Amino acid sequence: MSNWTIIAAGKKAKQQASIPKKWLLSNLPPQSTLNVSEFPDGCGLLTDEELQIIRADTDILLSKLAQGEWSSLNVTTAFYKRAIIAQQLTNCLTEIFVERALARAAELDEHLKKTGKPIGPLHGLPISLKDQINIKGLESCMGYVSWIGKVAEENAVLVDILEAAGAVPFVKTNVPQTLMWAETFNHVFGRTCNPYNCSLTSGGSSGGEGALVSLRGSPLGVGSDIGGSVRIPSAFCGIYGLRPCYGRIPYAGCVNSMEGQDSVPSVLGPLSNDLAGIKHFMKAVIDVKPWLKDPLVVRKRWSEEEYSLVDHGYGKNLCFAILWDDGDNVPHPPILRGLGTVKKALEAAGHRVIDWKPLKHVEICKTLVNLWGSASAEDYQAVAMLTGEPIIASMVPEQHAALAENISYRGNETASAYQLWQIQKKKRDLREEYLRHWEATVEITGTGRPVDAIISPIAPHTATPHGMNKNGNYTMVWNLLDYAALVIPVSKVDQVVDARRPRHEFYNDTDRMHWESYNPETYKDAPVAVQLVGRTLEEEAVIAMSEIVDNALKSSKARL
Amino acid sequence: MSNWTIIAAGKKAKQQASIPKKWLLSNLPPQSTLNVSEFPDGCGLLTDEELQIIRADTDILLSKLAQGEWSSLNVTTAFYKRAIIAQQLTNCLTEIFVERALARAAELDEHLKKTGKPIGPLHGLPISLKDQINIKGLESCMGYVSWIGKVAEENAVLVDILEAAGAVPFVKTNVPQTLMWAETFNHVFGRTCNPYNCSLTSGGSSGGEGALVSLRGSPLGVGSDIGGSVRIPSAFCGIYGLRPCYGRIPYAGCVNSMEGQDSVPSVLGPLSNDLAGIKHFMKAVIDVKPWLKDPLVVRKRWSEEEYSLVDHGYGKNLCFAILWDDGDNVPHPPILRGLGTVKKALEAAGHRVIDWKPLKHVEICKTLVNLWGSASAEDYQAVAMLTGEPIIASMVPEQHAALAENISYRGNETASAYQLWQIQKKKRDLREEYLRHWEATVEITGTGRPVDAIISPIAPHTATPHGMNKNGNYTMVWNLLDYAALVIPVSKVDQVVDARRPRHEFYNDTDRMHWESYNPETYKDAPVAVQLVGRTLEEEAVIAMSEIVDNALKSSKARL
Repeated sequence: MSNWTIIAAGKKAKQQASIPKKWLLSNLPPQSTLNVSEFPDGCGLLTDEELQIIRADTDILLSKLAQGEWSSLNVTTAFYKRAIIAQQLTNCLTEIFVERALARAAELDEHLKKTGKPIGPLHGLPISLKDQINIKGLESCMGYVSWIGKVAEENAVLVDILEAAGAVPFVKTNVPQTLMWAETFNHVFGRTCNPYNCSLTSGGSSGGEGALVSLRGSPLGVGSDIGGSVRIPSAFCGIYGLRPCYGRIPYAGCVNSMEGQDSVPSVLGPLSNDLAGIKHFMKAVIDVKPWLKDPLVVRKRWSEEEYSLVDHGYGKNLCFAILWDDGDNVPHPPILRGLGTVKKALEAAGHRVIDWKPLKHVEICKTLVNLWGSASAEDYQAVAMLTGEPIIASMVPEQHAALAENISYRGNETASAYQLWQIQKKKRDLREEYLRHWEATVEITGTGRPVDAIISPIAPHTATPHGMNKNGNYTMVWNLLDYAALVIPVSKVDQVVDARRPRHEFYNDTDRMHWESYNPETYKDAPVAVQLVGRTLEEEAVIAMSEIVDNALKSSKARL
Repeated sequence: MSNWTIIAAGKKAKQQASIPKKWLLSNLPPQSTLNVSEFPDGCGLLTDEELQIIRADTDILLSKLAQGEWSSLNVTTAFYKRAIIAQQLTNCLTEIFVERALARAAELDEHLKKTGKPIGPLHGLPISLKDQINIKGLESCMGYVSWIGKVAEENAVLVDILEAAGAVPFVKTNVPQTLMWAETFNHVFGRTCNPYNCSLTSGGSSGGEGALVSLRGSPLGVGSDIGGSVRIPSAFCGIYGLRPCYGRIPYAGCVNSMEGQDSVPSVLGPLSNDLAGIKHFMKAVIDVKPWLKDPLVVRKRWSEEEYSLVDHGYGKNLCFAILWDDGDNVPHPPILRGLGTVKKALEAAGHRVIDWKPLKHVEICKTLVNLWGSASAEDYQAVAMLTGEPIIASMVPEQHAALAENISYRGNETASAYQLWQIQKKKRDLREEYLRHWEATVEITGTGRPVDAIISPIAPHTATPHGMNKNGNYTMVWNLLDYAALVIPVSKVDQVVDARRPRHEFYNDTDRMHWESYNPETYKDAPVAVQLVGRTLEEEAVIAMSEIVDNALKSSKARL
């Protein structure tokens, strides 16, 4: 073995050793079982009370924790056991630190007992964190062999804030090396798979979070999203996930790829099994004035006024617009059905739904890739050269071995700063044009307002087989435009209604091949979701409008 | 003459021809008269009513305009005449369009007469605009010969907003070529000088605005500030000027240097003879939700709560900190006296004043220069090569002719995008460090809060002789940190109390030479000012705290 493979194997062994022996399962399902989503409930590791805890809605969980009805120690233990099951099923974790987390939970219980008061709005709640989010004393190797052994000297600002709010950071979760893939594999921890179908990807780059939260191994997770990295795993794993706008949630103190790349930066955002989890996270973080801890955070208070949809007629008779396709790549039948389901549900709830006309989505995404590509290869290489580990150039499983001995790159040749300025200028122009495009819809909504929110696919497909998730355009477009976007689960791939369907006109060859590659069997049980897209720094309204969509979907299902 | 000199001369002649003959003065003061600030009042061009108009405070002006007591036509005429006087004294204007402005004013009068209602919060108010701010149908050559003849096809977003608010854009004002100088000279319009002492610079890059507003040739001007370009002319010309933070005021639709340079961007900000002018501008622009017109504007409403100083103990017993020097270059005696005057006034008003400890100011400014320098030379050259005009490499008057035949550059060699990312990372780290530095002052203020605002020099000197304004560190540091900063006039250079003073220890040779170069005669009558520096996106509080400082100064003068 070369030096880097030895280092990587050592780290993986250490991780395995950090799992309490009693939580290792001997009754794991056979490899042929693709859908492991229901295994944890029946595997016998959790007590009935623990199962009740991990099934609770976030509101109930927080309320019982705040009242001391459930101790943080019990809640954290329940989720930890569940997370370790998830790990054994999907390989979703990186750092495991049971004792430390349980000790912290016990402290919180002690505080509540002594003072009668919760320590903050997230009192006692275990929270999982994407590997890049520093916790003092732990590593954040982020899938780079080169960063193994680098112990964080300080908490990320967000971790300080979450702890002050009473949360219990309890596991860190898996990512792709470089973070710049929409799947999750690296040389250190290996691959995370999709709990609904292990032959499919959990998505990425917050793919560990997606699989973990989906299996209720964490009530609330934090990922990051530079081009879809919160939303893709959320959608692929059937959970809720928010991409906030630049500067709403503090990023300071995290490790990252491409540091100093400010053209289209990464943002941190929550993943949860319900919208209450998303809202509690955002409000708790923003309420402590994070701009006093991270200078890149926008000085903008959490606005109950905006949450009440003051800019959207207070939520009555909204006009949504559906992006059926981006003019380049038509989504597979389950995605189109999901959009149709949302449309029907919203209309039944008294809202108007029109079609969204995409504007230059391909050009926007190409611009985005050029911005990152202006120096990404040099950035990755600067890290990888420390141990000689290869830069991963493919997420296809059988290609990893071949690549392992070759240093390879992704990304363009390094551009000049002047060239980068020109692309940034282009970005600004595209953002201006898109804003005018959105504002102009005031003419067709019938509400006196422009479209309130866009309902968009997250990808032209559900979770794909490993190595096949290559089109990030449906998420990346909103990153460049810096629109807040929230993923809402809708349904799952249905073998009957989501049958293959003929189509005779295509935007291009890729579109044709993509369409023809579909068959329901490959995507069996894969979750189907949409993202609700709002304006820049409109997180409050985006959460409120997502609640409207979510409730409409639930009412509509209840009626069936 | 070479081709570009012919083009430049043609433009200048056209400008001269746009001045109504009847407003050309035959009684201009001789060149030997340095202080022309009092000439306009006595020159005889303005009627008594017009003098009353141009002397009115902004509040009174707006109130009389809104009530129709003064017509916009009369007000605009008064300021136009005054502006043309200012032009003949200081050469502060670029585009002059009397008929168009007066026609617009008459329309507003008509509207008020018909409806009984002002069109918006700035009804009838003439507003001057820095040359780069596009007005449809006019040029914005920005001191570049190469851009002469390029007529704007659309208003800048800000101009649309100001017009909708009822303002009357009525002149455009002079700038240095490239905008990247803190003085005002270009090959097209020539040099703008300081109304208090024509041998001194008006500052730059919004130097036309500084001279014009100072002579009450405009009640409200709009400049831009990338490294001090609003604040330096404001301070040098003895008026108020605000540098808002990135994204508070819409920039879309302006021409600019270094477009796509997003590391430390330029911002637009107001200049006025009173703080009411600054506040009216900010509130009027933000109240129309400019984020719906320019995607780079932060979605943050004008906050009366923040203006009431909710984050600063509602303005009672504030703790200010004075930056006496930046640890690199000690300001000249008049500046130090100005800081002392503010200290005494604030203490007399019941506030606490401590010393501000600068943190890495030189390193911050060097980082800033490296960010811009990563591609500035290539940017300037791309414009200048269109006509072969030389890039201006010195603001020293006698050096211009020599340079005129040589293409020359400023700025570093072009960096790579990867190098730029590394400098941007450095910038982020410095911003984080400075935020911690500021927050840590909570230990020493005695208020339970960190320092409420910093009182800082704008430069280590008042307005300098032409070509000598070379140290921008006292303003640039706040641009990189993105702190809101407002210039408040304090006094003028006094030949007696501001005498030369011996000093025996110096930070470095530059500091020594700078100190020894001072004598009160050179800087005769030059205005002395300070800037009040607050936090990022804290414009409301910065205006409110500036009112506190301004009132304290006025009370303190009244007591003398």
